[in-house]
Amino acid sequence: MRVGLVGLGKMGANMRTRLRAHDIEVIGFDRDPELTDVPSLEELVAGLPAGERFVWVMVPAGDVTNAVVTELGSLLVAGDTVIDGGNSHYVQDAPRAAALAETGIGYLDAGVSGGVWGLENGYGLMVGGDPELVARAMPIFDALRPDGPREEGFVHAGAVGAGHYAKMVHNGIEYGLMQAYAEGFELLEAKDIVTDVPGTLKAWTRGTVIRSWLLDLLVKALEEDPELSEISDWVEDSGEGRWTVDEAIDAAVPLPVISAALFARFSSRQGASPAMKAVAALRHQFGGHAVRDAGSGPS
Amino acid sequence: MRVGLVGLGKMGANMRTRLRAHDIEVIGFDRDPELTDVPSLEELVAGLPAGERFVWVMVPAGDVTNAVVTELGSLLVAGDTVIDGGNSHYVQDAPRAAALAETGIGYLDAGVSGGVWGLENGYGLMVGGDPELVARAMPIFDALRPDGPREEGFVHAGAVGAGHYAKMVHNGIEYGLMQAYAEGFELLEAKDIVTDVPGTLKAWTRGTVIRSWLLDLLVKALEEDPELSEISDWVEDSGEGRWTVDEAIDAAVPLPVISAALFARFSSRQGASPAMKAVAALRHQFGGHAVRDAGSGPS
Amino acid sequence: MRVGLVGLGKMGANMRTRLRAHDIEVIGFDRDPELTDVPSLEELVAGLPAGERFVWVMVPAGDVTNAVVTELGSLLVAGDTVIDGGNSHYVQDAPRAAALAETGIGYLDAGVSGGVWGLENGYGLMVGGDPELVARAMPIFDALRPDGPREEGFVHAGAVGAGHYAKMVHNGIEYGLMQAYAEGFELLEAKDIVTDVPGTLKAWTRGTVIRSWLLDLLVKALEEDPELSEISDWVEDSGEGRWTVDEAIDAAVPLPVISAALFARFSSRQGASPAMKAVAALRHQFGGHAVRDAGSGPS
Amino acid sequence: MRVGLVGLGKMGANMRTRLRAHDIEVIGFDRDPELTDVPSLEELVAGLPAGERFVWVMVPAGDVTNAVVTELGSLLVAGDTVIDGGNSHYVQDAPRAAALAETGIGYLDAGVSGGVWGLENGYGLMVGGDPELVARAMPIFDALRPDGPREEGFVHAGAVGAGHYAKMVHNGIEYGLMQAYAEGFELLEAKDIVTDVPGTLKAWTRGTVIRSWLLDLLVKALEEDPELSEISDWVEDSGEGRWTVDEAIDAAVPLPVISAALFARFSSRQGASPAMKAVAALRHQFGGHAVRDAGSGPS
Repeated sequence: MRVGLVGLGKMGANMRTRLRAHDIEVIGFDRDPELTDVPSLEELVAGLPAGERFVWVMVPAGDVTNAVVTELGSLLVAGDTVIDGGNSHYVQDAPRAAALAETGIGYLDAGVSGGVWGLENGYGLMVGGDPELVARAMPIFDALRPDGPREEGFVHAGAVGAGHYAKMVHNGIEYGLMQAYAEGFELLEAKDIVTDVPGTLKAWTRGTVIRSWLLDLLVKALEEDPELSEISDWVEDSGEGRWTVDEAIDAAVPLPVISAALFARFSSRQGASPAMKAVAALRHQFGGHAVRDAGSGPS
Repeated sequence: MRVGLVGLGKMGANMRTRLRAHDIEVIGFDRDPELTDVPSLEELVAGLPAGERFVWVMVPAGDVTNAVVTELGSLLVAGDTVIDGGNSHYVQDAPRAAALAETGIGYLDAGVSGGVWGLENGYGLMVGGDPELVARAMPIFDALRPDGPREEGFVHAGAVGAGHYAKMVHNGIEYGLMQAYAEGFELLEAKDIVTDVPGTLKAWTRGTVIRSWLLDLLVKALEEDPELSEISDWVEDSGEGRWTVDEAIDAAVPLPVISAALFARFSSRQGASPAMKAVAALRHQFGGHAVRDAGSGPS
Repeated sequence: MRVGLVGLGKMGANMRTRLRAHDIEVIGFDRDPELTDVPSLEELVAGLPAGERFVWVMVPAGDVTNAVVTELGSLLVAGDTVIDGGNSHYVQDAPRAAALAETGIGYLDAGVSGGVWGLENGYGLMVGGDPELVARAMPIFDALRPDGPREEGFVHAGAVGAGHYAKMVHNGIEYGLMQAYAEGFELLEAKDIVTDVPGTLKAWTRGTVIRSWLLDLLVKALEEDPELSEISDWVEDSGEGRWTVDEAIDAAVPLPVISAALFARFSSRQGASPAMKAVAALRHQFGGHAVRDAGSGPS
Repeated sequence: MRVGLVGLGKMGANMRTRLRAHDIEVIGFDRDPELTDVPSLEELVAGLPAGERFVWVMVPAGDVTNAVVTELGSLLVAGDTVIDGGNSHYVQDAPRAAALAETGIGYLDAGVSGGVWGLENGYGLMVGGDPELVARAMPIFDALRPDGPREEGFVHAGAVGAGHYAKMVHNGIEYGLMQAYAEGFELLEAKDIVTDVPGTLKAWTRGTVIRSWLLDLLVKALEEDPELSEISDWVEDSGEGRWTVDEAIDAAVPLPVISAALFARFSSRQGASPAMKAVAALRHQFGGHAVRDAGSGPS
């Protein structure tokens, strides 16, 4: 099988490597001439069999993905298929699929998890779209997913959009899991009772109820830097955590943990918090300087 | 009526003034010679009618209050009464009452709210203890509480401890209210849609559902400093917010709002957050440098 | 001055009464023939001076308001003004204003707070739109707002949309305030320490830091029904709480308290919670029946 | 090596089986004559070598464990060691150790994780106490812990109490993790976008960032009951989640996720929520019946 792969950043390049290792021929395109196999999207398309092409798009979600999909729509023909493997918002999938369908081009959305470890471990895949197209693309998914039973690393989650929806929820869960470990880590560090914190986390990696791959990674991080002294507490958030909470609000689903994890990231990036300044101002107003006056009693 | 008042910090001194303005004679004692009426606790006690004394204690909760109450226990006699007006933890009230009762001394706990404004507005009072003692102390409470119907600024909340328990819950609510206004303030500031934020808060002070005294104070703070530029976002917490959450946990009462307000204060006082460093470390582990790599797509 | 008022439900009817009491002539229209002053929107428009009309729209936000505004757009003429006093999402204001502006019709958005008490107390008003239009409509606002200084019950918050944005944030704060009081109430009820819970809340209404109009209402509710035995714990949410959290997510503003209050409402309306079923299922999986086995120790 | 094991409930019985499979002789005692190896604690003690005995206590935390440890204190002699493997509150460990030390008896606290799966997988162990004692007990720990490197299933976390402290934090994290998966599950179920929810969770078990043992268990639960229709949403909490939040409050550590998970459990067990009744009562007070009145607009 031969496929096109647009976007050869760290994720895309790793996926090309894994596909080739599984006997899938890959023509990769990247706007960076150092990375690309072919000089243009046209040549990528020209190198694949018309009407049977699969082009996997692995570029940043949003405008970049939209532009690539649109351009592919003008280059591909009926019978070809675009697969968006990026972290697109699921609401963009149905309009894209409809636009491509006008000229008979198929569209699949693929949520992809695994990060830089996917090259070695395989990628968890959540796919949305037409069953017949999914079946035709299966050799690609089988190459990318982890070894083991197909259903333990791949799901055809539903119609177009379902793959990205599942990946969005996956990432929302990820926020909650990370924050739970992080809170526990801080509590271990906060008191001098447990004197071997990295060792305690390492001991949790087998046999315990909370063992997980994220825990393994946290242990690895602590082995590299036991005090996390080289790490800033500034935490970015991708769109997916936000979309998860937005969806929950839309569906009236309580999401206290995932939203708390999201807000913790927002807070981590603030300098002075306007809200906490307002709280401090209020305390000053009703307590007067008395709030710091040793002899003053309650306010 | 004549009463003793121990502790002449800002709160105590204001209360002395208010009591005197309501024709209660007050003998005040403070360890600060600049503030005190009499040179010692002994002289305060000597100046009141034995067996009918009321001594109001208005010093910092915890060790200082415990020491004063203990010392009063050795100076007072049967028929006298100690009233703790500080923010003591309610669990300390019953043991104190029991210890004093051994020599026939009475004990009342009085939760007091109103801050520096209490001098002018009167203090909201929540009192715990024996009904007969409460009745005898009523002239003091009537002098301290706001003008208006007694039941709108005073309550005999229950047995010993109930006054401080009610004050604890009052302060827990206070945390939640302040944080709610603060979050709204931050959201108004965050977008350029409302161009008159101080004016908007001021407009909320009459007619709206959210009008309150705390809102009035926030408006006042913004009139003094429209950007809160002189205010740090570092927010102290007294014990009462913590006790409130502890009680809720003990009683299996969900307290998402009040606990969130408490945690926001904890966060406000952290430099680098160990938890968020752990989250950042995790993101680095699974995303590699790719998380900041423009061409990389999802991790 | 003479104005049109569309929508004579409880809010609209009260506003008509208040306007008339302040010497504003009102022509009211409602689709309910029992309530309406005129049989049709056309007759309402015909009864006002062309090119100088103000028509206040007070109907449910969303489709109903959109339909009324659109219909007014076809009936009014250049110089006339539509004021939307409903709880519209602020993002709808600019498109409406632009559509009306094509034929020279003005548009103001007015956030209105005060509920059924507004008739007597006046309504808190937050207005967005062109300053010159706001100035011309001021007699209406002055009639509706509470007595007292204009700036304590009215604000021109910014351009079109700012009024509804301010009202949205107002309601978000309202969610947080209500939940804070509610949590405190539950904690008072949960233990037998405070034996007079309604009295304690009533005592908080003067002098304390947490006194507010919402507290007054809770006291009133408890006077009518001390155990709240006639009240269901099922709590509706209007769109405004949801929009507030959505905006915060968009602006990366942490909103732990307001979001917790929103989620508590979602939870209140669930029968069996799918999430908690999943947690229970997990506990069953790792603990086996042992979780209820008295001799079993930890899982 | 020969050890005593007190408590042969599901956990204790499984541990006895695992110890024996690793060539540790075990004398088990349980008050249930169907389960016990010996008729009394005295005979258990008599069957072990005086001055070298290790007695593992695996009974419910709190009064039962206290009683067993106290009784062992009267039966054991200098040189013997008690190991508490239950979910005791860590604050109880130091007093117990001090009491036993008066007669030369050693004490270790062992946090144990793994549930009913520990028999097969081994138990994650977190141990607190004297290093020399820990070293002597190591054959027991090696038998109980999972196969693999010792440090991936065992830690000597610190002095007496550190083992139970680590287990407490472990369980706090567990609450957060479970709630995160549960919220994601509910969000998948809430919309009809992902049509294969169990399959999606199963696909997450390999390759993804959120793969974990708890996820495996949730998949297993869904395989047994895809709708969780046999599962109640009533979720118990053990003491450890509560202690975790209490500790965080004591140490001023923000714990939004773990506390939210704890509160979700509290809520799951309430019938009518007093707090939400109060919110509903407030809405009724300011909105009147108008809140359900179609023609009414905003309150």
